Amino acid sequence: MREISDAIRQGAEAYLARQYKTISGIAVVFAIIFAFALRDPNNGYLGLETASGFIVGALCSNLAGYIAMYVSVRSNVRTANASMSGLDPALKIAFRGGMVFGLGVVSMSLLGISGLFILFGGDPAKTPSLIVGFGFGASFAALFAQLGGGIYTKAADMSADLVGKVEAGIPEDDPRNPAVIADLVGDNVGDIAGRGADLFESITGENIGAMILGSGLAALLSTFGGQIPGYDLTNWVLFPLVARAFGLLAAIVGMFFVYAKGREDPFKSLTRGLLVTAVLAMAGFFGATVWLLGYQNVNLFFSALTGITAALLITWITKYYTSYSKRPVQTIAHSAESGPAPGIATGLSVGMESTGLFVLVIAGAIAVSYFLGGGVDALRPLVPPYTANPVKVGLGIYSTAIATMGMLSVTPFILAMDGFGPITDNAAGIVEMSGTPEEQRDLMDLMDSAGNTTKALTKGYGVASAALSAFLLFSAFLEVAGLAYQKSNIGGTTLVQVIGVNLARPTVFIGALVGAMLVFVFSSLAVNAVSKTSARMIKEVRRQFREIKGIMEGTAKPDYSRAVDISTRAALRNMIVPSLLVVLTPIVVGLVLGPEAVGGLLMIGTVTGIMMALFMNNGGGAMDNAKKFVEAGNLGGKGSPTHAATVIGDTVGDPLKDTAGPSLHVVVKLLNTITLALAPLFALFLLKVLAGG
Amino acid sequence: MREISDAIRQGAEAYLARQYKTISGIAVVFAIIFAFALRDPNNGYLGLETASGFIVGALCSNLAGYIAMYVSVRSNVRTANASMSGLDPALKIAFRGGMVFGLGVVSMSLLGISGLFILFGGDPAKTPSLIVGFGFGASFAALFAQLGGGIYTKAADMSADLVGKVEAGIPEDDPRNPAVIADLVGDNVGDIAGRGADLFESITGENIGAMILGSGLAALLSTFGGQIPGYDLTNWVLFPLVARAFGLLAAIVGMFFVYAKGREDPFKSLTRGLLVTAVLAMAGFFGATVWLLGYQNVNLFFSALTGITAALLITWITKYYTSYSKRPVQTIAHSAESGPAPGIATGLSVGMESTGLFVLVIAGAIAVSYFLGGGVDALRPLVPPYTANPVKVGLGIYSTAIATMGMLSVTPFILAMDGFGPITDNAAGIVEMSGTPEEQRDLMDLMDSAGNTTKALTKGYGVASAALSAFLLFSAFLEVAGLAYQKSNIGGTTLVQVIGVNLARPTVFIGALVGAMLVFVFSSLAVNAVSKTSARMIKEVRRQFREIKGIMEGTAKPDYSRAVDISTRAALRNMIVPSLLVVLTPIVVGLVLGPEAVGGLLMIGTVTGIMMALFMNNGGGAMDNAKKFVEAGNLGGKGSPTHAATVIGDTVGDPLKDTAGPSLHVVVKLLNTITLALAPLFALFLLKVLAGG
Repeated sequence: MREISDAIRQGAEAYLARQYKTISGIAVVFAIIFAFALRDPNNGYLGLETASGFIVGALCSNLAGYIAMYVSVRSNVRTANASMSGLDPALKIAFRGGMVFGLGVVSMSLLGISGLFILFGGDPAKTPSLIVGFGFGASFAALFAQLGGGIYTKAADMSADLVGKVEAGIPEDDPRNPAVIADLVGDNVGDIAGRGADLFESITGENIGAMILGSGLAALLSTFGGQIPGYDLTNWVLFPLVARAFGLLAAIVGMFFVYAKGREDPFKSLTRGLLVTAVLAMAGFFGATVWLLGYQNVNLFFSALTGITAALLITWITKYYTSYSKRPVQTIAHSAESGPAPGIATGLSVGMESTGLFVLVIAGAIAVSYFLGGGVDALRPLVPPYTANPVKVGLGIYSTAIATMGMLSVTPFILAMDGFGPITDNAAGIVEMSGTPEEQRDLMDLMDSAGNTTKALTKGYGVASAALSAFLLFSAFLEVAGLAYQKSNIGGTTLVQVIGVNLARPTVFIGALVGAMLVFVFSSLAVNAVSKTSARMIKEVRRQFREIKGIMEGTAKPDYSRAVDISTRAALRNMIVPSLLVVLTPIVVGLVLGPEAVGGLLMIGTVTGIMMALFMNNGGGAMDNAKKFVEAGNLGGKGSPTHAATVIGDTVGDPLKDTAGPSLHVVVKLLNTITLALAPLFALFLLKVLAGG
Repeated sequence: MREISDAIRQGAEAYLARQYKTISGIAVVFAIIFAFALRDPNNGYLGLETASGFIVGALCSNLAGYIAMYVSVRSNVRTANASMSGLDPALKIAFRGGMVFGLGVVSMSLLGISGLFILFGGDPAKTPSLIVGFGFGASFAALFAQLGGGIYTKAADMSADLVGKVEAGIPEDDPRNPAVIADLVGDNVGDIAGRGADLFESITGENIGAMILGSGLAALLSTFGGQIPGYDLTNWVLFPLVARAFGLLAAIVGMFFVYAKGREDPFKSLTRGLLVTAVLAMAGFFGATVWLLGYQNVNLFFSALTGITAALLITWITKYYTSYSKRPVQTIAHSAESGPAPGIATGLSVGMESTGLFVLVIAGAIAVSYFLGGGVDALRPLVPPYTANPVKVGLGIYSTAIATMGMLSVTPFILAMDGFGPITDNAAGIVEMSGTPEEQRDLMDLMDSAGNTTKALTKGYGVASAALSAFLLFSAFLEVAGLAYQKSNIGGTTLVQVIGVNLARPTVFIGALVGAMLVFVFSSLAVNAVSKTSARMIKEVRRQFREIKGIMEGTAKPDYSRAVDISTRAALRNMIVPSLLVVLTPIVVGLVLGPEAVGGLLMIGTVTGIMMALFMNNGGGAMDNAKKFVEAGNLGGKGSPTHAATVIGDTVGDPLKDTAGPSLHVVVKLLNTITLALAPLFALFLLKVLAGG
């Protein structure tokens, strides 16, 4: 067993080392280009600062992935040991391992930005370039890591399952399977290290959002602030930071409410902790609102409440669509009674359906929070003479930003839940392989099943926060790209015009088409990389079973390293083209068609990305649980034709929910950071030059 | 055999009668509501006229579906007979049957609109309401018909295949299969009648586009026309109509080039006819441009050329992604060697990939034609002081409209190709069942295979024309909704402001999210209706095989009517909710959030709808042909595990490519017509009332 676990650790470390080397190489090339392309101190954007931020962001992202693996590898053994003493200690160790990881990621993000700030002499003029560059670097590295890890883990998983379980009839994680080591390495580099990078860039995006919010608000309010009752610049800029601090404290208190009363379902314990965190975070928000903004702006507290309510509703919706005690998953299983095809068609249908309630909740949250801030007056531009009231519009957008912060106030706790999943998963594997008593294995099954649920929920939360913060970051992009407001003096009258991104303009429509297409083509490449690699791996595994005599009897050892090698090389090769496509497309559109077209690309890319991520995550998750529903003894149970049909469905869902879907979260956020970072470049676009402007 | 063919005709007629009764009932309710809601003669929109146009449009759509079935049922027997005399006569009869249908649909659309015009006394003030109402009615009825027919045909097809071919091992269309009659009825009500309604509304949309173009241009140019060299109002308004007439003539001439030299591949003959039509249509365009607009506006001819080039490229791309002699389909088949799951994953991936080249071609066509019309000057609004040059922008949009017309100039020929598919399909079935000599069957196989290819190509063409005309109809919507331009007088200076649809406004972002979600939820409901119905049908067929003794020996007749009844009731019930969802969502968004939010919904709904239609049509089509690739003797051929895997993939693709995908074309066009028809209603939206505007 030690031999196998060493092989896994070595495989994972070797892969991560090669992956990080590849990512760093590409990042350095981009950094050099950005440093030159953006060197224009006149408009406040500094090439060297952006490039340095970019490099540090990418390095921190790699480090976050490595730390995630480091913590997870250590916590899972301790969790497995603790499970001998009962559920409560095991649950606490696994969750606190997750919390260590969560707080580590949060603090590394803050440390990275602060370090850069100090390194460059603390010059406030350089700060925007530094933080935007940092965010861009973080999402850049995260995309490669999440995609590469996702390809690695699913290619190995699919082939280990299809040849080992289905064809050879040996159990999961059986050492006779030549792909077993690759599969276990995959869990570490995909689910854990990839996810770590993804979360690092999410939390960084949140930080950037709060900072842009602060500085953008400062600019807006210093001009118009006199019109807001009880307005004080410092307090309004401080507010997001104070509210965030309360969120961190709330998560730490919430952690103490994660304990198991007897054999209580661990998922219930986690939910209790989450609810306590949410209530405390909201109490903190209320205090901060009254203290800093004055009681007359208490509406903004209700915006935060709207945001967190939306977050809780989204986790509930995700649970509804992917839990096997609910209608959607059971419908898939029932359809699979007629064969794999109707089961898969129903699974795809469930994934598409899940976008409905999700959009209603997010749209509701945006509408309610916008009106709480700006009121119906913020809509005045809709009525002739179409001149905006910038204060009301600004307050409306500020209010949606506060709703986003309300939603994100429980992020540290959610990060811990997210870390909890793979830790228990690995711990359950260790317990299984060590031949421990059945009682202990039951207990770990209980934890593992809760971990699977949290995995699905945190994905839903991730998409929701991407959707809500997209609107905020889009406003930030308009600000930076000079598309928000424009003042002109006409006949002695100063006119404030809203410019925005007008869909009726052909360049914007083209940007929109390209944005939507980018999401589909990226997903296609991701899914295809998995199925191509697994097809190659399947041939190799079949070859070994056929050519190496004595594998099945256990007298000869399979050649694990060949399978590891196939996964490693395929993941490294196939992560490059899709990631570069996502990075280069907005750059080309921006350089040729200009910032407005990029705005169209960004917005429609985001909306389509969110829909496709929901479709793939929830469709894949539902098909996975339809299989588990049958395995729990329903509709014929294990070994029945219905079970075989759901296994095929689960395998179709695998690359959707674990490779393409999670990578799309990163794509959405990368589109946001890349457009923010390169906006000054797009201002000098080709068409403007041609038009002589 | 006569007994069976009578059963099919009766089943189809009975279903269509019930379907049209249901659609008419719903249409009357909506018409009454519209008649009251839109009764505001002051702003030029007339409730009674819109409602009458709506009813006549819906009736004509039903009639078009019926005619399609009528022509097809008669042409297929004649084609089967003609095939005894050789390929050439059979090809000519099948194609000319399609041409009769195509020209019939085109002329009925023109007759319906002209009839309405005469009925209401030829008052030009009433014309916009009449034609917009007519288009809305046509797409309204088409959505129900295409969706209902799609559910009917695929539910019957899937269950006939899964139980008959896979479980019982009897050939396709075997009279021992209890679902066989339902399957054959389905071909008539889904592929033929549903498609007829779809095409009727496409051609109507084209007519409306040309008319709106004419009147919108008249308004724009009568104000600014003096600035265009060689400008003459009448000629510029006449131009679209003259160019269309040339397109019709070109199709008729092109028809004579559809003949078979010896055993030439019929697809080659069709391509020859299409190319001749395209060249002649372009010659007509060139003549019309020089004659009516003057040689100095020859750029507009190049726009038309851009449009038709795009159309030909799109059919080539569609062929590349769905033809079994090309890489994508073969990749699916190779993946299926590892099992059904990798095959299906690759199939989904191919569908998503196919959006890439498609978008590049459409985006290129919009960009090139816009610049040919307005030149880079049309982009001036991107450069401060952000005031538009309406003439240049207007010419740019006019030019993209001409590119759309260029693309649509071959529509009559494409309609004929579209009719050719089901006619040969049915004829091949008749030849197969009559036990004719092998030579004749080979010949029909050749025709049938060409028919399958044309079916895929015309779908690609349909999506392309929807994409290009969406931009045109979107401009028309902005015009009607008062969102295009606004003149204000500020300090004595008249300022022309572009209003448009600004994505930075929260209501527009909400509209965008809802538009994207609508496409996913509609697709989900469509796919789910098919898999639910087929699951019920599979149980019924299994029950009959089990309970009626002697079916397999041919001594007892299965109970066909039960299967027909299940399909009929499920199709009628399940077509209602998704269709109403598509109709009601934009109405609710418009009444609450206003025309700008509807603009967001319309545009993002269109873009997402196009992507999803491409994904489902091409993914499903590629999986279908991967099966055919294996059946042609590759990778183990019929009966091998790879074949079984591709059969599962084909079945997953069925509801995607034949129910949800084609219905999405109609959804996209319905969104365009509904927003045009109800725009005056949206001007009085709730938020404006609340804001006191």
